[in-house]
Amino acid sequence: MNYKMMGRFLAQIIIIEAVFLLPALFISLGFGEWSAVVGFLIALGAMVLLGGGLFLLCRKAGRLFGAREGFVCVSFSWITLSLLGALPFTLSGMVPNYIDAIFETVSGFTTTGASIIADVEALPKGLLYWRSFSNWLGGMGVLVFLLAIAPSGGKGFTMHLLRAESPGPDVGKLVPKMRQTAMILYLIYIVLTVIDFIFLLFGRMPVLDALCTAFSTAGTGGFGIKGDSFVSFSPYIQWVTTVFMFLFGVNFSCYYLLLMRQIRGVFKDEELRLYVVLAILAAALITINILPMCSSLGEAIRHATFQVSTIITTTGFSSMDFDQWPVFSKAILLFLMVTGACAGSTAGGLKLSRVLLLFKSLRRNIRKILNPSKVQVVRVNGKPADEQVLDNTNAYLAAYVTIIIVCFLLLSLDKFDIETNLSATLCCFNNIGPGLGAVGPMCNFAGYSDFSTIVLTLAMLLGRLEIFPILILLSRSTWRKH
Amino acid sequence: MNYKMMGRFLAQIIIIEAVFLLPALFISLGFGEWSAVVGFLIALGAMVLLGGGLFLLCRKAGRLFGAREGFVCVSFSWITLSLLGALPFTLSGMVPNYIDAIFETVSGFTTTGASIIADVEALPKGLLYWRSFSNWLGGMGVLVFLLAIAPSGGKGFTMHLLRAESPGPDVGKLVPKMRQTAMILYLIYIVLTVIDFIFLLFGRMPVLDALCTAFSTAGTGGFGIKGDSFVSFSPYIQWVTTVFMFLFGVNFSCYYLLLMRQIRGVFKDEELRLYVVLAILAAALITINILPMCSSLGEAIRHATFQVSTIITTTGFSSMDFDQWPVFSKAILLFLMVTGACAGSTAGGLKLSRVLLLFKSLRRNIRKILNPSKVQVVRVNGKPADEQVLDNTNAYLAAYVTIIIVCFLLLSLDKFDIETNLSATLCCFNNIGPGLGAVGPMCNFAGYSDFSTIVLTLAMLLGRLEIFPILILLSRSTWRKH
Repeated sequence: MNYKMMGRFLAQIIIIEAVFLLPALFISLGFGEWSAVVGFLIALGAMVLLGGGLFLLCRKAGRLFGAREGFVCVSFSWITLSLLGALPFTLSGMVPNYIDAIFETVSGFTTTGASIIADVEALPKGLLYWRSFSNWLGGMGVLVFLLAIAPSGGKGFTMHLLRAESPGPDVGKLVPKMRQTAMILYLIYIVLTVIDFIFLLFGRMPVLDALCTAFSTAGTGGFGIKGDSFVSFSPYIQWVTTVFMFLFGVNFSCYYLLLMRQIRGVFKDEELRLYVVLAILAAALITINILPMCSSLGEAIRHATFQVSTIITTTGFSSMDFDQWPVFSKAILLFLMVTGACAGSTAGGLKLSRVLLLFKSLRRNIRKILNPSKVQVVRVNGKPADEQVLDNTNAYLAAYVTIIIVCFLLLSLDKFDIETNLSATLCCFNNIGPGLGAVGPMCNFAGYSDFSTIVLTLAMLLGRLEIFPILILLSRSTWRKH
Repeated sequence: MNYKMMGRFLAQIIIIEAVFLLPALFISLGFGEWSAVVGFLIALGAMVLLGGGLFLLCRKAGRLFGAREGFVCVSFSWITLSLLGALPFTLSGMVPNYIDAIFETVSGFTTTGASIIADVEALPKGLLYWRSFSNWLGGMGVLVFLLAIAPSGGKGFTMHLLRAESPGPDVGKLVPKMRQTAMILYLIYIVLTVIDFIFLLFGRMPVLDALCTAFSTAGTGGFGIKGDSFVSFSPYIQWVTTVFMFLFGVNFSCYYLLLMRQIRGVFKDEELRLYVVLAILAAALITINILPMCSSLGEAIRHATFQVSTIITTTGFSSMDFDQWPVFSKAILLFLMVTGACAGSTAGGLKLSRVLLLFKSLRRNIRKILNPSKVQVVRVNGKPADEQVLDNTNAYLAAYVTIIIVCFLLLSLDKFDIETNLSATLCCFNNIGPGLGAVGPMCNFAGYSDFSTIVLTLAMLLGRLEIFPILILLSRSTWRKH
């Protein structure tokens, strides 16, 4: 294991976090939120000390870097970012329990958006900004950001990191160089976020509110700035957010193809088609189901579309208390929580491309039972799928189901009912945010014990990093000398 | 597709069912239950006509028989058996709705044991016997029975049938000849059932009650003869049943190894070890959890052990209303519902050998990510596992999860809550019986609409036949001419 190189890498990540903390500090300074300013300053100091020290210690690092180091780096970076990013919440006195603060920060970076804070509107503006910004940074990935701006760290370095942090069964290179791929991804991300921000300004949202909302929407995070999420916002803002959440759930390589004018490739993308069909179908079914609860068809369509968009992209806003909806609508939402949106987007969940691969390999196996001698190939978008990717996808499902079961069992030790625990597990692990029952859209996660909070925090990390980087930390062969 | 051969096979199955219906008829005659006698007689007439006619029609069948025919035969046999076996319930007027009667019969043959009948004790003795006997016959498999007694139907015939009906990821031959394997399996099954029956008689149970209970226990079915299942039985009978349920959840090839004095092979069996450890662990945790609800430690151990044994083997009896237990105990039971017991036993569920294979192939994939060049072999009981079996197991999990989600979504259209619907899905699909909430151990499935009843009936069949035989009916290539 190349510890020095990992150390240097971690140092860079910490410094980046410190830089990104500065705007939040300035906002708190501007609004005269002194308790928050103190929190930010101490956190900044800690980051500079730790990051700087680590950098000096690991200056002379070799260049050897393999898959093991990539996965371990990603896990350690995310854990460190969260532990440090949680400091301002506790130091400012807003979230006295540090475990709760870690939950809140992990919820931000993993774009979950589940909150432990009862009264969001009482938070200092600086902390609100920091919460929403963590959604944005976590959406595309902190390491991907570093890759986009830093010089390459040697052969295999970028590839292994990007593979470990990017969501989906397989990492597609947009251009031959990984670093350029990372830059293009972030450029598309920034442009889309700015457009969303401008649309929100047109809806007469205050500048800072619009910025925070755009950040949370872009990262499909779901940290809101209001206690009732989107309930009191105008239909215009709800519709704008519905559309943008949906757009951020699309595989970003589709946007790149659009920019390259390969429109046919976009239309033929099987995952995108499934995404659109699934969303329309779910919205239609829910519209019919909740019609008696709404004053007009238009309102039913608006709430159904908003909620489908926010759940399928694992954002987790709410325009209505969907915990009060009929069981059928709630079941559809639970289903969308599991599938998630497209791979290579900022959304969480199982990812639709995995769902496609699972179904296709299932179909192949049925055919193989009938005709054992015939060779059957699984095709995605017309091209044969890599058998290793298929294998990994199946293993991913096994790990996915296992983690849901374990997490659900551990939560059962707490005081809530089965519906609450199941939806809390699904919502944290799939990085959605609010669940049903006692963790419904109008409630928060503060009721859980410290133990349950830690379990859910781990579930969020496992979900965002797609299980393997964290599981690999537990494997003996990771730490064995080769 | 060799339709004639399938027809002849189906005819034999129907005739066997008619023969097995005779004892039930005699019991009803003996007790003077005339409405039941009428029901049995008409059902018998229908079976003889249909079976005889089909046999005459398909007398001259070829010998060609492949995997396709095997799967289709199994599915059709089970559906036909259920449709005909349900007749006595409706014709006797005890279950007026034929859809409900089909649910009850499928619940019997699939060894689910979920009931739609509110007052079991009001049923005629003949029907009670028929219900319990269907548990017994379905446990080891009707087709396996036919294979054990009928002359072989040609090359590949027995193998394809046994493979399609037997539970577990892979069919192990005990002896080179399949027909002898089937005979050995049934012999072990009968002997164990008789021993259970004798033990129950020692507990001063009336002969017919002991027979019915032994049938339901052996098939890990769970149809009880009392309205409160096992609550009012003596601790002795509860303990006897705990032990025997557990024994029927063991892979029958282990008993064969014991008979062959290969005791070492039994002790080294990884699935058996997992089964024992899991059951002891679950029972211990539940004992601690329910201790405050019981009058003594002994009582807590008895109820915990009974409930763990009945759920892990997917039998579904209850010695206590476990729906009233703390959430943690209920969550453990939900978990055991999914895993099930050993392959090659009469139990349902995912089967522990599949769980083992899934974990082992998951571990392999993690190692492969770390060392892509190294060849990794999955070993079961020291021997390398067949890659095709691993592939099928992964595909099975995908199908398993999909069916649970679809079934859950369809049930949501009904009036019950999420906990009830989820546990109903798990309980029917895993062939357990009672669930939680409105379908808890002291309730029944009568509250569901006809549509939901049909969904749950299909789920039971899919669970018992392990998905593929039913899914294959829906595949185009099954019906295509070769």
